[in-house]
Amino acid sequence: MTSSSLITPRTLKGFRDYPPEIMIPREKLMETARKVYRSYGFAPIDTPALEYLEILAGKGSDETDKQLYKFEDHGGRQVGMRFDLTVPFARFSAQYIQQLGTPFKRYHIATVWRGENTQAGRYREFMQCDFDTIGTTSIVSDIETTLVIHDLLNAIGFEKNYTIRINNRMVLSGLLEKQGLAGQSVPVLRAIDKLAKIGPEKVIEEMVQAANATREQAESVLKLAELKGSNDEILAALTKMLAGNDVGEEGIAKLKQLLAGVKSAGVAEETVKIDVSIARGLDYYTGTIYETFLQELPKIGSVCSGGRYDNLAGLYTKLPLPGIGASLGLDRLLAAMEELGRIEKVGTPADVFIPYFVEERISDYLKLAATLRGQGIAVEVYPEAKKLGVQLKYADKRGFTWAVVIGSEEFEQNICQLKNMKTGETTHVAMTDLVSALSPVS
Amino acid sequence: MTSSSLITPRTLKGFRDYPPEIMIPREKLMETARKVYRSYGFAPIDTPALEYLEILAGKGSDETDKQLYKFEDHGGRQVGMRFDLTVPFARFSAQYIQQLGTPFKRYHIATVWRGENTQAGRYREFMQCDFDTIGTTSIVSDIETTLVIHDLLNAIGFEKNYTIRINNRMVLSGLLEKQGLAGQSVPVLRAIDKLAKIGPEKVIEEMVQAANATREQAESVLKLAELKGSNDEILAALTKMLAGNDVGEEGIAKLKQLLAGVKSAGVAEETVKIDVSIARGLDYYTGTIYETFLQELPKIGSVCSGGRYDNLAGLYTKLPLPGIGASLGLDRLLAAMEELGRIEKVGTPADVFIPYFVEERISDYLKLAATLRGQGIAVEVYPEAKKLGVQLKYADKRGFTWAVVIGSEEFEQNICQLKNMKTGETTHVAMTDLVSALSPVS
Repeated sequence: MTSSSLITPRTLKGFRDYPPEIMIPREKLMETARKVYRSYGFAPIDTPALEYLEILAGKGSDETDKQLYKFEDHGGRQVGMRFDLTVPFARFSAQYIQQLGTPFKRYHIATVWRGENTQAGRYREFMQCDFDTIGTTSIVSDIETTLVIHDLLNAIGFEKNYTIRINNRMVLSGLLEKQGLAGQSVPVLRAIDKLAKIGPEKVIEEMVQAANATREQAESVLKLAELKGSNDEILAALTKMLAGNDVGEEGIAKLKQLLAGVKSAGVAEETVKIDVSIARGLDYYTGTIYETFLQELPKIGSVCSGGRYDNLAGLYTKLPLPGIGASLGLDRLLAAMEELGRIEKVGTPADVFIPYFVEERISDYLKLAATLRGQGIAVEVYPEAKKLGVQLKYADKRGFTWAVVIGSEEFEQNICQLKNMKTGETTHVAMTDLVSALSPVS
Repeated sequence: MTSSSLITPRTLKGFRDYPPEIMIPREKLMETARKVYRSYGFAPIDTPALEYLEILAGKGSDETDKQLYKFEDHGGRQVGMRFDLTVPFARFSAQYIQQLGTPFKRYHIATVWRGENTQAGRYREFMQCDFDTIGTTSIVSDIETTLVIHDLLNAIGFEKNYTIRINNRMVLSGLLEKQGLAGQSVPVLRAIDKLAKIGPEKVIEEMVQAANATREQAESVLKLAELKGSNDEILAALTKMLAGNDVGEEGIAKLKQLLAGVKSAGVAEETVKIDVSIARGLDYYTGTIYETFLQELPKIGSVCSGGRYDNLAGLYTKLPLPGIGASLGLDRLLAAMEELGRIEKVGTPADVFIPYFVEERISDYLKLAATLRGQGIAVEVYPEAKKLGVQLKYADKRGFTWAVVIGSEEFEQNICQLKNMKTGETTHVAMTDLVSALSPVS
């Protein structure tokens, strides 16, 4: 092949490659999530990337439909690439829930695709990281969902530097009922959801226009959404505002039970905060709602959101499947961690580098590496007997923590030079002590 | 929505869902592979599921092209879904290798799609699990690739019950040169590759027809491919057959170096076996070749295959990128493990189940679960205060190992009933001893 016929190596617009320094923290985050999910008995599932178009388009809004990657396959079927993990989970549940039994707790970490406008810096391929409990309406699952979010953020390393904001849709529904706006909950919720973004005056205007509310009704809804204070203060105010309304009182009771439950599991009181302004536009949420903000970087938005719903799979089955779940915003969290300097960019998952520069000693280098690996230490041996300087430069570029340097003399004396690649410090270590010298890092 | 408008929940032909009992061992296998790859300094990468069609179609055969899922995206681009991880890796390397530097060692575990005929029981969506070292021709990388395959199979649990069969393309090339068949290596290799399937007589016929060989030439090539015996015996026979041919002698020398290297790293001699009949049809292999067979289930075919190549990314760059790598056959291994009864089918990743049946004690159940999780024990609490029998039936169905049963009396005495769900055996354990009673299993 002549060079003129080379194909230009490039990725599609809106898609990206993950080289090691990006993929290493990404894999670590996914592993952390899996570990936390499993510690609560959530089980992994996976579903196909491609589904019948009718499955995907069934629930979709016009916007979703426009973003769907869809085509006709070799067998003439109309197919599409999944754009979220909720629709496949609904389809999956409708298909198998009777065999699986309830309650059913699953997590699903997988790629989804949306052909959306990439100008906002969004990608057309991204990872979702969902967990849900279906088949029960018990508050215990609401408590547990909160605990999972708490454990996730702690395990990722944000201990105490985040707030889980909670609300309950029934609180707002109760107020709307009281105000004679019961039928207008969707446009009202949509308006309230924009409070932080557009301010109170514009929210009132939107409620008046889109929800047919009077200015007084809109103001009283807004008053509720703007409640500030400690959890106890907010609960006291809500109790007054919603007195006599069954739905509202049930919502308040559930918030109280949730707070008591997470407290008994050891969650610090300031971590879970009632925020009555959280509505989450999606109209399928019916109870508890979650958003999670990083205190050092609130502007990045919620990094873990979700809530309780009455019926997951109504499009595919007559079986009612109530549930609760949330989704960890993997890419958003990684972006935040990078901005906060919490990610050390390295090009290798191994801690220890062994330069290979006494050519005839290759067996000894390989033997040493095998011994270290047997002790759970990840080790890379340079494959070519090049000059030591070239190899150490490579090790430095890759980001190894330690170099174990052994030349002819060291082999004879059964010692090595242990070089800390971050500080440059070098110490002589007896080969018999090498494992213990390296163990703290691995 | 009326029930008549329900959408039938179903998956596309050739695609499948992974419920927990299938996904749990699958995730475990992927984790094992990641751990082994990392222990050698292989770093993870990922690439998009969708690529420009010209990237994917560039190297493809007619068959690949027919199997490609391809379509026009919203921006009028011709795109396709990746059908393997080698083509994306070649594109990726051509694009970034100058920044990344060599040697570059990567692993890539990801889904690929092929719209192939599903009648053979093959799926249209499956996972590949590749690792490669590029940018070096050193035998150390060939040794290391063998060690990775060895560690993978051991870590998965096949210790000593597998054979890594190795060969070197140069051995065959040397013989072809000696026989005056140098230009015919591709059809000759293709024919030899079928030896186990179609037998020696048909292989000779194919060489005569497709490679224009005389019957004598074909017989002498077959004689080499049929060499049997210990590694030393085969090496001795090859040395005689290829005496005086540089390429052949280099191939023999490399096989010897490889065997010496893996031996020094502690690999049992019977694990790596020279098999001169392994040719692997793909014509880009140029040096060492690998296939790995399970002794208990050889008919399932090779579970880890690969080899050395001279140039990974010639379609996309003029930079020569020699390398070596192999691919773990995840789905084939899982099928084998299932057939051999090596997979325990469970519906939960947690070991411990806590039934919740004293309603007012919910805080105590939650507190206990949090304490156990803090000790690294995965615990599920049943979310509803149903009858104990119902909950234990659920726990049994899910496959928990232990149930920690605590009723009012046990709470007062600060003890629990620890029930082994597999044997039914129940013992009374003081709450202070519970963690140590459970720890062996987690």
